[in-house]
Amino acid sequence: MKFVNYESLNSPQKRNFPPREAIQLSEAIEKVRPILDAIKAEGRTAVLRYAHQFDGLQSDDMYVSPAEFAEAEEMLDDSTKEALRTAYKNIHAFHRRQMPQSISVTTMQGVTCEKEYRAIESVGLYVPGGTAPLPSTMLMLGIPAKIAGCKRIIACTPAKELVHPAVLFAARLAGVTELLKIGGAQAIAFMAYGDYTFQKVSKIFGPGNQYVMAAKQLVSIDPAGCTIDMPSGPSEVMVIADRYANPVYIAADLLAQAEHGIDSQAVLVSDNMQLITAVNNQIAMQLEKLPRKALAQESIKNSYSIYVQLLEQAFEISNEYAPEHLILHVENPERYKSKIINAGSVFLGQYSPESVGDYASGTNHSLPTSGYAKSMGGVAVESFMKSVTFQQLTYEGLKGIAPTVSTLADAEGLFGHKNAVTLRMKQ
Amino acid sequence: MKFVNYESLNSPQKRNFPPREAIQLSEAIEKVRPILDAIKAEGRTAVLRYAHQFDGLQSDDMYVSPAEFAEAEEMLDDSTKEALRTAYKNIHAFHRRQMPQSISVTTMQGVTCEKEYRAIESVGLYVPGGTAPLPSTMLMLGIPAKIAGCKRIIACTPAKELVHPAVLFAARLAGVTELLKIGGAQAIAFMAYGDYTFQKVSKIFGPGNQYVMAAKQLVSIDPAGCTIDMPSGPSEVMVIADRYANPVYIAADLLAQAEHGIDSQAVLVSDNMQLITAVNNQIAMQLEKLPRKALAQESIKNSYSIYVQLLEQAFEISNEYAPEHLILHVENPERYKSKIINAGSVFLGQYSPESVGDYASGTNHSLPTSGYAKSMGGVAVESFMKSVTFQQLTYEGLKGIAPTVSTLADAEGLFGHKNAVTLRMKQ
Repeated sequence: MKFVNYESLNSPQKRNFPPREAIQLSEAIEKVRPILDAIKAEGRTAVLRYAHQFDGLQSDDMYVSPAEFAEAEEMLDDSTKEALRTAYKNIHAFHRRQMPQSISVTTMQGVTCEKEYRAIESVGLYVPGGTAPLPSTMLMLGIPAKIAGCKRIIACTPAKELVHPAVLFAARLAGVTELLKIGGAQAIAFMAYGDYTFQKVSKIFGPGNQYVMAAKQLVSIDPAGCTIDMPSGPSEVMVIADRYANPVYIAADLLAQAEHGIDSQAVLVSDNMQLITAVNNQIAMQLEKLPRKALAQESIKNSYSIYVQLLEQAFEISNEYAPEHLILHVENPERYKSKIINAGSVFLGQYSPESVGDYASGTNHSLPTSGYAKSMGGVAVESFMKSVTFQQLTYEGLKGIAPTVSTLADAEGLFGHKNAVTLRMKQ
Repeated sequence: MKFVNYESLNSPQKRNFPPREAIQLSEAIEKVRPILDAIKAEGRTAVLRYAHQFDGLQSDDMYVSPAEFAEAEEMLDDSTKEALRTAYKNIHAFHRRQMPQSISVTTMQGVTCEKEYRAIESVGLYVPGGTAPLPSTMLMLGIPAKIAGCKRIIACTPAKELVHPAVLFAARLAGVTELLKIGGAQAIAFMAYGDYTFQKVSKIFGPGNQYVMAAKQLVSIDPAGCTIDMPSGPSEVMVIADRYANPVYIAADLLAQAEHGIDSQAVLVSDNMQLITAVNNQIAMQLEKLPRKALAQESIKNSYSIYVQLLEQAFEISNEYAPEHLILHVENPERYKSKIINAGSVFLGQYSPESVGDYASGTNHSLPTSGYAKSMGGVAVESFMKSVTFQQLTYEGLKGIAPTVSTLADAEGLFGHKNAVTLRMKQ
């Protein structure tokens, strides 16, 4: 890890510290644009062509059949099933409490305003394939969609022939209504545009590689009108530690992050130099035993240990960096909660490693990266809902508010707006 | 208005009815791209150059001074002040009730998960100038930002010399912290990128012309990391009316929409042919008296009257169209509330014209257009906040969840994730 004494930085450096690798999606965007155009024009035919070409899909049927779901349930070992059921239970318990509340307010006599929430009717979930199956992502996206009340929950994941049984089992647990064996930009485009055989969705969720990210960004500004959950970048963790912290645990947490990929970032901030040294020594030792050592080693090289004089400064750094994951290896971590403004998910204390949140504590693991935690939170039940406002006025209510509306419509030069009120007052 | 009998349409037509003019932003995007690039490279210098060129800004000082605020307060007539204060009061009363609630859930013994909300620290509001001042937009964006607790609330509006006093008065009421006399794509870019004199914001809100929209879309996919409230298109209203409705009021409501611009869309859906005829006659009569007759007339030409056999079908049409504004001119409108899934803001009954929501009832007028109401709601207090999740495990909690995390980390091939748990269990 690169070592930095925070005191040695000037103010502009502090404002952007530690630096992230800028996500350069422009090349990926140019590559996926023709894929999106082809799918807009040809629909399913083009989707299958790309699925054959890029993911090696063997068949022309992209739908997972009920038989495949049933088979997966038989094939999957009991311990994985049990683990997925426990994860489901915890994630469900935390998310079902997130239902946003309707309000009704009488703002003036005879003027009632209400805000209600409705599920997004049709949503698309993307679950990457790549090197390993990701049943946890299926749960993290499917469970809140189901709780929100989405009627149509489409999921896409790349496959050659069969989708991994753990992913199928998770999809069924979560309540996914249709599962398609397609991945990459072609999956995103198909969900966003649809065709005569497949109705497009209104919002797309989920992580992915740079082509998936690029495709999500393009559809998010396309007149087809599909929105996305968030822009996603490489995963990252920040650890804030004081002298009471255990360097063995911290090293394990940093390496769990680092094994995601060479672009992952793991950052340690501490007011204790001995601890920083001990963590770095532990990292060297634990690295040796990691199957993904090569990946993790590269990622650790691009990561930082930061020394601060006061622990307070660690929270300034963290809020400026806005980490996806933040772990507090400090004494009485709960007393710092109010200092944490910008972060995706926070792990309090030495028995709260990030991996519990990745799988099973109950919180969502679809989180804002790249500093987006400054303006957005992770995926939640409300991500699958939207509000509708209502107002109802009585004749007296309209009479009371009429002078205000007329005056403001006049000020803005909108006579028709004024007229809609004054006409009603005349009769 | 174009007349359509809904029965005469086939299913694909029904799925996209009434058709909207597709927003073609590609030309605008190519025009604003160099503006964004210049501001990224040169900051303030480029912003001023464009402000002089496009908006005729007279000075090199883009900040509204405290003296200008004070002057505006003196200049502004009492009735407008009073109207803005009433609007403020109602909007504030409705929005302060929207504060999202924290939750804390013990998902397993020793595993506590929490979700808390934090204000976005730095936000940017865009208030268009154009043909008329828009103090109402300043209130609609500024009030929820202030209630959310945003520390830095920047607003931009184009000006030659002085900003309209009503806009300044509204900005002060709402609690805007800095007001800049810049508009267009250059204002969006400056807020998104900042420079050494001006710190960038984390999220940008507000409507605007095609260049503003194009700039917002570009910054929303830029690695600079600024997010936006929503994509915005031309304004639109749908009216659902039964035989009890008053054609005079309906015509006034449709024209209030039509006067926004030639691309505005006003749609009437009814199960009563006589009413449709009467509304069309009323429109012809009322149009004559509108100062913005030319605009409204063009817009009305592109609008629709739709006949349905059953009122139920009107709600199917409305949910498929997902109107920004929906007005129910029907008997006992409240009984249809649960049928309304996709709409921005809904006006129930004959004494609830859309203009009350534009200004003063309390609901927000920054609403999703172009069908985006299928996946997003209007601007609300939560638009200025984001959630952070927390989890804290005791040793026993970790012990209880460890087998689940280990099994799933194994299934996903992430040994480091497993190790972070098993290491802690060993000690």
